[in-house]
Amino acid sequence: MKFKSPPVNSLSLDFLTEFCISLEKLENDRACRGLIITSAIPRVFSSGLDITEMYGKSTEHYAEFWRAVQEMWLRLYSSNLGSSPAGGCLIALSCDYRIMAENPKYIIGLNEAQLGIVAPFWFKDTFVNAVGYRTAERSLQLGLLHSVPEAHQMGLVDEVVPEEKLQEKAVAVVAQWLALPDHSRQLTKTMMRKAVLDHMLAHREEDIQNFVKFISKDSIQKSLSVYMEMLKKKKS
Amino acid sequence: MKFKSPPVNSLSLDFLTEFCISLEKLENDRACRGLIITSAIPRVFSSGLDITEMYGKSTEHYAEFWRAVQEMWLRLYSSNLGSSPAGGCLIALSCDYRIMAENPKYIIGLNEAQLGIVAPFWFKDTFVNAVGYRTAERSLQLGLLHSVPEAHQMGLVDEVVPEEKLQEKAVAVVAQWLALPDHSRQLTKTMMRKAVLDHMLAHREEDIQNFVKFISKDSIQKSLSVYMEMLKKKKS
Amino acid sequence: MKFKSPPVNSLSLDFLTEFCISLEKLENDRACRGLIITSAIPRVFSSGLDITEMYGKSTEHYAEFWRAVQEMWLRLYSSNLGSSPAGGCLIALSCDYRIMAENPKYIIGLNEAQLGIVAPFWFKDTFVNAVGYRTAERSLQLGLLHSVPEAHQMGLVDEVVPEEKLQEKAVAVVAQWLALPDHSRQLTKTMMRKAVLDHMLAHREEDIQNFVKFISKDSIQKSLSVYMEMLKKKKS
Repeated sequence: MKFKSPPVNSLSLDFLTEFCISLEKLENDRACRGLIITSAIPRVFSSGLDITEMYGKSTEHYAEFWRAVQEMWLRLYSSNLGSSPAGGCLIALSCDYRIMAENPKYIIGLNEAQLGIVAPFWFKDTFVNAVGYRTAERSLQLGLLHSVPEAHQMGLVDEVVPEEKLQEKAVAVVAQWLALPDHSRQLTKTMMRKAVLDHMLAHREEDIQNFVKFISKDSIQKSLSVYMEMLKKKKS
Repeated sequence: MKFKSPPVNSLSLDFLTEFCISLEKLENDRACRGLIITSAIPRVFSSGLDITEMYGKSTEHYAEFWRAVQEMWLRLYSSNLGSSPAGGCLIALSCDYRIMAENPKYIIGLNEAQLGIVAPFWFKDTFVNAVGYRTAERSLQLGLLHSVPEAHQMGLVDEVVPEEKLQEKAVAVVAQWLALPDHSRQLTKTMMRKAVLDHMLAHREEDIQNFVKFISKDSIQKSLSVYMEMLKKKKS
Repeated sequence: MKFKSPPVNSLSLDFLTEFCISLEKLENDRACRGLIITSAIPRVFSSGLDITEMYGKSTEHYAEFWRAVQEMWLRLYSSNLGSSPAGGCLIALSCDYRIMAENPKYIIGLNEAQLGIVAPFWFKDTFVNAVGYRTAERSLQLGLLHSVPEAHQMGLVDEVVPEEKLQEKAVAVVAQWLALPDHSRQLTKTMMRKAVLDHMLAHREEDIQNFVKFISKDSIQKSLSVYMEMLKKKKS
């Protein structure tokens, strides 16, 4: 699956909806056992959550957006497909294996704190499962975006390869995962992820209410506005 | 304690029963404060669970076998003895310290997924406690068997020594552990392991039922048969 | 905040009480957003819990002392201030970032097991959150005190700097933390630490009862007496 939503594959409501539909189709396609997620746009996998979906909209819109973000994670984190994305963080963390291209300009992380917002608990859980508690605590509190070597060293990505080897390596990794009997691999994955998935499902509505209430606050909208201004200035 | 059940110290029902009886005797012997578990058979600590106990037998037999595996873990993981095995995984993970001999041919890991079966949750918990969540997730899903340097690097073994120094090192490690006041060391161990032990005890019967139901399936029996054929071919 | 309670900044009842009062003042001072904890006494941050408060006193005294230890941790571990201590373990573990001065004589760790006592569960939880389960299990069971490079490698301290750079580095780190929007950083910290804090609060009285009962035992008082004798001999 190649993301292609210019300029930076932001996770908008439309993008997420389409992503979930595609994922469902692939899950139901018995011929498809593995999935490689990468980007058709040079130098970017995904910029993460689309801030414009969280700014100046109705509470109904915020709730709808958040439900779509949850849906994407629930589908991907519990997916029976062996998956290996080529970069990114939000989606990458939900896959089975993360390969990142060597490039001094590439960064990956959950930088919510820099925007004046907070990563939800199920992102935190997924992040902690990847890099451990202490590394996650510092990274999330500071909203850090990590360079490729840093991300590799802390376990946020599993492997780093030259840009031109990315596709080849991803195919090789999926092959390694699919060499196992499907039911063993899937039952093991379910066993590993069950606690975090169940915790989210048990608090799903509450999590949406929290997000809507939080993001609707004037002070938070102000923070987002400041951050977007800063991004605009950076670009120009 | 030196395992000696040729050819590869498989954990059969008989082996496990005898192991538990020996362990109980040692626990009740006030003169015995520490335990070194190693193998009297060259080049192998233990091949792990005896597959023949899980193939073509009655459900009663499966249940009896599984209860014996549980019993071994419960005794060893909660043991008051300071213990230091010389290799292996199933038993090694339940001890206090793992020393492995340097040898390019030695491997260690939980390879259930390769056999078409699944490691039970309490093995998973013990494995995660040793190497962390992410490393365990990948290793268990792929049923990996790790080389000595790999096992050392990921924390599956605590120390690697030349083959001829194994016994000497094990004795030194046990001495280090026994230098502490027994009650402090034991209470600390209990505090650390309580959650995982309690979780297993609360689901023990359910875990046996699950194992019996799973292992009795035709498809799983087929997987085991294929795996055993492959092993035979490898040997010849 | 500079500890100055000669000779070794022991955490006595008086020291803890004063520490909490100072901390409360700073928390309520809106001009104060960050905190650096260090020592005014050369070559020592803090020797840890004051053993004399746990030896030969009344059960009421033990309970009062333990409540003060809990209070210190509860305040510091949940503090909204960005904090960066310069060393130590008991207090350091409750802060956001740990910087240690390079010095072959410096050590850090939770050595309760060496004294014949046991670290309480909330110390264990905090320790595990910093260094991971396996490292904590071994370190706590053996009551290890780690050298600076060891502490750095295992994640017990986040950074090591030459002695003369300590203050400068601490100021830089606090600045990095305070660059984030306060509410994001604080909410993220609360989310990360909530489980461990809630667990302690739910068992606080029980934990005091346990401590008092344990420390009042003749055998434990004997252990402490032996340990204090050993310390005295070491000094002379």
